Order: sequence, then C-alpha cells, then structure tokens
Amino acid sequence: MNKIMIKNLREYYDKEIELQATVDNVRNLQWVQFVILKDSTGKVQMTVEKNEEFSKLNAIVDKITIDSTVKVKGILKEAPKVKMGGMEIIPSSIEITSLSAEEKPFNYNDLSTVKLDTRLDYRFLDLRNERNKMIFKVQSTLTKYLREYLYNNDFTEIHTPKLIGAASESGSEVFEVKYFDTKAYLAQSPQFYKQMAISSGFDRVFEVAPCFRAENSNTSKHATEFTSFDVEFAYINGYEEVMQLESEMITYAFTKLKEELGEEIKRVFDIDINIPSLPFPTMTLKDIYQELEERYGYKVDESEKNDLTTEAERLCKNLAKDKFNHEFLFVTDFPAEKRAFYHMRDENGKLLGYDLIWNGIEITTGAEREHRYEEIVKNAKEKGLDEDVKFYLEFFKYGCPPHGGFAIGLDRLTMLMLNIPTIKESMFLFRGPNRINP
Amino acid sequence: MNKIMIKNLREYYDKEIELQATVDNVRNLQWVQFVILKDSTGKVQMTVEKNEEFSKLNAIVDKITIDSTVKVKGILKEAPKVKMGGMEIIPSSIEITSLSAEEKPFNYNDLSTVKLDTRLDYRFLDLRNERNKMIFKVQSTLTKYLREYLYNNDFTEIHTPKLIGAASESGSEVFEVKYFDTKAYLAQSPQFYKQMAISSGFDRVFEVAPCFRAENSNTSKHATEFTSFDVEFAYINGYEEVMQLESEMITYAFTKLKEELGEEIKRVFDIDINIPSLPFPTMTLKDIYQELEERYGYKVDESEKNDLTTEAERLCKNLAKDKFNHEFLFVTDFPAEKRAFYHMRDENGKLLGYDLIWNGIEITTGAEREHRYEEIVKNAKEKGLDEDVKFYLEFFKYGCPPHGGFAIGLDRLTMLMLNIPTIKESMFLFRGPNRINP
Repeated sequence: MNKIMIKNLREYYDKEIELQATVDNVRNLQWVQFVILKDSTGKVQMTVEKNEEFSKLNAIVDKITIDSTVKVKGILKEAPKVKMGGMEIIPSSIEITSLSAEEKPFNYNDLSTVKLDTRLDYRFLDLRNERNKMIFKVQSTLTKYLREYLYNNDFTEIHTPKLIGAASESGSEVFEVKYFDTKAYLAQSPQFYKQMAISSGFDRVFEVAPCFRAENSNTSKHATEFTSFDVEFAYINGYEEVMQLESEMITYAFTKLKEELGEEIKRVFDIDINIPSLPFPTMTLKDIYQELEERYGYKVDESEKNDLTTEAERLCKNLAKDKFNHEFLFVTDFPAEKRAFYHMRDENGKLLGYDLIWNGIEITTGAEREHRYEEIVKNAKEKGLDEDVKFYLEFFKYGCPPHGGFAIGLDRLTMLMLNIPTIKESMFLFRGPNRINP
Repeated sequence: MNKIMIKNLREYYDKEIELQATVDNVRNLQWVQFVILKDSTGKVQMTVEKNEEFSKLNAIVDKITIDSTVKVKGILKEAPKVKMGGMEIIPSSIEITSLSAEEKPFNYNDLSTVKLDTRLDYRFLDLRNERNKMIFKVQSTLTKYLREYLYNNDFTEIHTPKLIGAASESGSEVFEVKYFDTKAYLAQSPQFYKQMAISSGFDRVFEVAPCFRAENSNTSKHATEFTSFDVEFAYINGYEEVMQLESEMITYAFTKLKEELGEEIKRVFDIDINIPSLPFPTMTLKDIYQELEERYGYKVDESEKNDLTTEAERLCKNLAKDKFNHEFLFVTDFPAEKRAFYHMRDENGKLLGYDLIWNGIEITTGAEREHRYEEIVKNAKEKGLDEDVKFYLEFFKYGCPPHGGFAIGLDRLTMLMLNIPTIKESMFLFRGPNRINP
C-alpha cells in the first residue's frame, strides 16, 4: 500500500510527499489558511499563506468543508511552533477527493446530548468519534490474541453453518428462514457442530462467528445477533481443564493487548487493563450465597438459589475483589436441571460445568459435555428433544472422546473491558427486536 | 491442557503416562493383543500380553471396538521393532471412555465406493478420514496467515450484521427471515458494511464471515452459505493498489502455509504449493480473447466478449502458464454495465476493477469503489435501486475517502489449493438448495 500514514510522517521531512487524508478542521484567517488533516493514525497541519502566489490553493481551501477528503502534494516542513507534532505541510497542489455536506445530523466529536437511537441511525457518523472507533480496534486486537493463544496450542479454526434444518437446540427463540420450498433456521450457537468436529477427530477447534437469538428482550446486554468466540477440545479429564484453558487464554490475550494498546486505552478510556493472576478463583454456587450473606447481608429465598440472581452476579464483583483480590470468579456446582441436556453431570446430578463472572457480569458458560451415547440419548429424551436432535445424537454413536468447551460473547467482553454502558455501543451495528437498520 | 499428544510421546520413554486416545485398530492374536491408538497428531501401539497376570486388561481389550475412545495408564517403552514410531505402551489400566457401535454406515478409511451424498449425510464420519480432516487444517492455517498479513498492515477486523433490513444489494437471491412482526434478510456479502467502516474512518478493515445466497444452482463451485474473506481499504490511488495488496497477501500466506504444512500437504494430497512470484500478471479482457484465439484457436462470438465465458476462464490457466509461467492472472477492463453499481468506472465507462483467476477459476472480484456522493447516487438510480440502498448512499454524503477492496471465497480457495473436485468437500458442512442437514 502506497498511502503514507500520518503517524509515519516524520520520515519525510523536507521531502515532496503525496498525502491522502480527511479534513478534521479548517481555520480560514485573514492572512493564512490552516487545514487540519487526519487519518486513523493521527493528525497533521497544512498551512497555506493567503496571497497572489497561492490564490488557486486559497480558492480550493475556501471550498473545503470538514470531513471532506483530500489528496495533497507538498513539502513536509519541521515547524517546532506547531503544536500538532511540530510539523506542517506546505502544499503545492490540493485535490478534493470527496466533498462533505456542511450540515450533519450531529457533531460526532461531542455526543453528550445526542440520543443513542439517533447515533445508531447514523452509526457511520457515530463511529467517526475517536472513542467509538477505538472500541473496535480493541476488539480486533483482543480477538487476534485470543486466536493466537489457540493457534499456539494446535487448535483448528472451523466455519460451521448458520443455516440449519431443525430448530434444535431449544425449540424456541430461533429465527425462521424461507429456504426455497422449505424452512430453515438460524443457528443459536455452533455448539452441535463444534462437538461434531470433536467426534470427527479434530481434537481442538474454535470458531468466531455470528449467533442468532430471536429473544424479544431489550436490555443493555442482549442482542438478536452477536459474535461468539467458541472453543471446544477433546480428551479432557474434567471441566476443570476447560476452566484452566479459558483462564490461560484470557490472561494471555489481556497481557498482549495491554502491551500493544494499553497506553492508548488509558488515554481514550482512562482504563487500566488489569492482567488477571492464575489460577482464577473458584467458588461453588452454595458457598457464594453463604458468603454474600455473611459479607454483604445479601439474603435470598432458597428457591432462587439454584442459579445466580442478577444481584448475586453483580455482588460477585465485590466478593471476588474482597476475598481474592481478583476481577474474575468461576462459579461451579450449579444444579444440572437448569442447564442444557448436553452438559455432563455426575452421578449425583451435579453439573460438571461453570459460569465465569467478570466484574459482576457473566461472560461465559462452559462445561464438560456428555460424550457417552446412552447417556446423551437419555438426557435428550428427558427434555423431550430426542426427535429434534436425532442428527446430533448420531455424533456419539461411533465413539467420541471426553471433551468440553465454552463460548465468550465478544461484544459483551469488549463492553466490560472498556466499561461501556451498553452492548449497543460495543457492536459495530447493533441488532435488536426493534432495530434491523441500517 | 494436560493431554499428552501422540506426536510428543518420545519425551516420555520409561515413564508412567496417562494417555487418552481413539482406537484406530485392534489385533487380538493368540498370545498377544495389539491396540493401535490415535489422536489428531499421530498413532502409537499398545501391547498387552495374553496371560493370567493381564486377564483383566485382556477382557477389556476383548470388548474394545474400532473408534472407541480410551484412557490408558502405563509405561512407554522404546521398541525398535515396532514400525509405528519404534515405541509401545505397556498398560497397567485401560478405561473405555466411549464404546463405538460395531456396524458403521461406511468405512471412512476407504471412501472410493461411497456416494458423496451418503458421505455428507454422515459428515461426522466422513471427516474422520485423514485426507478430509486435513482439508480443514490447511484452511485454518491459510486463514491464519491471510489474517496475519493484514494485522501486520494495520487492518482492523470487523463483525458486520448478517441480518439486514432490506434486500438491497441485488433484490433477488436473498433469503428472507421472519423477524418478530416484520421481515429481515440474510446478507449476501458485507460489502455495504465494510464500506461503512471506511466512511467511518477505519481506513483498513477485513471480515471473515458467512455469506448467504439464495441461488438455486447445483454446481461444484456454488453453495447457499459460504465463508467469505473480505477486505476493504481507504486512500487508494486506483484499483491497481487493490490488486497489489491482494497479490502480496496471497503470496505471504502461501509462503507461510508451505513452511508450516508443505510436507504434510505433499504427503496427503501429493501437491506442491507453488509460491507465486510478484507482481501477478495482468491482461485486459480484450487481449485475453485475442490471445486465446491466437494460441489455442478459441473463438467466441463478439456478443459474449463482455465477460469471461466459463471456457475462457478455464483456458486462462494455460494462458497464464504459457505466457507468464504463472498460476494467477488478473483480468481487467471489463465493461462496467455488467458490474454492481458501487464499482467505480472511468469517464469512458471502463470498470476500475478486476477478476483474479487462479488455475482457470475465478477466486476474486475486486475494484475501486465509487466514493463520490453524486456519482454513487446516479449509479444507483440507473439500476433502479435508489430507494432500497438509501441508507447506503448516506455513507458518502459527509465525506468518504477513495477506497477499494475484494472478497475471496475461503471454501473455493481451499478447493483449488488442494485440487478437490467439489466445494461440497472443502466446506465443513455444505449447504445447497437440496441440503440443509445435518
């Protein structure tokens, strides 16, 4: 690529350069015109004196609106008095490559008074805001390092179908698709297919892909389409190995992310990425309720103690902090009946799985899976699913190793990492029951 | 992860180990039992003498069927006479972790007489075949290095929605989704949204994600759902820069892939990965037809010369080889009227874009995009699309830099790389008009 990035301009002092950029600002003074140029890596000042010699350039600058894009030829000069990097461009030619309309729906540099819905309607403008754009640089970099950890451990990336023949996993909350003369559905998760890979002998797989949920819920944590980071691996000796892998993967990715973007994240979001220590602390559901009562006086009826209440989940932030000086907390020993039929349980009905809570919000459900044919058939029957999941049960008929896995919602992880108030902001384009555009 | 991988067994000579694996074969002889164990990294022999001392183990081995999975404790012994790695495991305990049914739908080690449809019905068995599983190791590794090239060049990975509000890009061939009380559609490509990212100032983006096409065509190259590797970047000086980036990215990824898996690909597929030289050769559509006639006597009516015929595309393999000693060929100077409205054209109506042909099959369409508001509005109107793509046209109203990009179908790329006869084999799970299961 030939484009000079503004962060690298310093290499071109006193040279003829061609620079393409977007106009950040124009100050048209009596004797001089200042045009601030930007790209995704920085800003630089272009200076044009107003006089006969530069009249053509002056006329062009007169026309330039903010957010227009330009191709500039000129000399880059060291200019210690210029605050912006101590340099300026003295142009010999300016070409306007696109001219922005003057009146915009809102000023994206100050979104404090703009309604979220308006911002989402004009998301392409909203994302011009430096903070908002940075969210996705962080997400991309974080994902890069999550993947890198798995590549380093011999995982294979797979791409499983999102169009499926049966509304299988739960029956409800599935989008229906008109598929030629029949119906198809959108996959809620790649769960069945990553387990198929295990049955096929892939040993270690992951997928980063959209999941679809036809839930009519309007919260700050839910979306009808989101990106899931799914992991599954074979030959485990229990769900504790799944927890171990997940915590090591997160710690690896956070460490690398901090090295690469820590300073920028501090500058833009005023957030320090804390590298979690290993192993992450673990508590049983029962012990959590006991300590929440002892420490914080949080009482809840016995009938609610078969899962974490929203408030208990929130208080886990304090508990993890106060008891372990940690941001993460694994919760284990959930009763099995509340969980999907493919999660493994022991002979006492204890679920061999976990939730992972980060700063008081659940980011993962993980588990050892039921890999034994007779058992999984029995579990499916108990839930009345045996016909719907027939194709899935086949995966276990001809041998399948013990295995487990988990999924992380990338948008929710990003939201938590950068302390963003709603998932609507941590997705490139949010999708909800009332929002399918743009 | 605690699992010992078979490729690393050599580190454990004369040590007590615990090994989880799948049973590749059992030879139950008069005086001894041989069990061949495998995981995704290799095979190893387990040897159990038949006598009183080992009667419990003997009884377990008697029950073991091929494809069952086991957890074995024992000592790893150096055994130069054993062909399989010169080692064997002498077990002290064997646990069958899952028992395979004896009768399988087919023998996945010899698929020569199994119909493709049967194989796809039982894809989880079909993928136990070494060659078939290797396809996805290659795809995963290739994708890793394609991404790495882009990360190294400051690209951001984005995740754009697959649920869209309007059947916009072409109107036909779009799947319809029941979306609460209204309708949605499945995205045919992330084209509009990666351009939105450019308008938002992301400068350089890519996405690896499913695309959906409601085409009722049953060929070896088409699927209703496939994985697209999409790239878009800003501030270009013409579509030639898009061609340059794509060719450099491919060359980088092929080089790295060959380093990592070249030997294994040679062994399993008998294929040498050829690293293409840079720059890739380029010819105009007109020159191609002229040379195809001169060199190979291929004549075609003038009326067909506004695009590459399938036969012309196929012959480009010979042309690229004979004229340039190359496997790749960029084709340029298509007439604009056959292409999407968002492709840029020059003042003479020449398309500022290209196709990339690899070994006689098109793998990419790339182009500079129309980024000027008045022009893109005019182009959309000409195609009668202005209402449907209204949200998209907005992206260009408030400034948008010159930009371009391309998309590669990952499944097709994998198919060509490994000389696989049909895309049905180079996708983890194929989806076509008549196939939506498993």
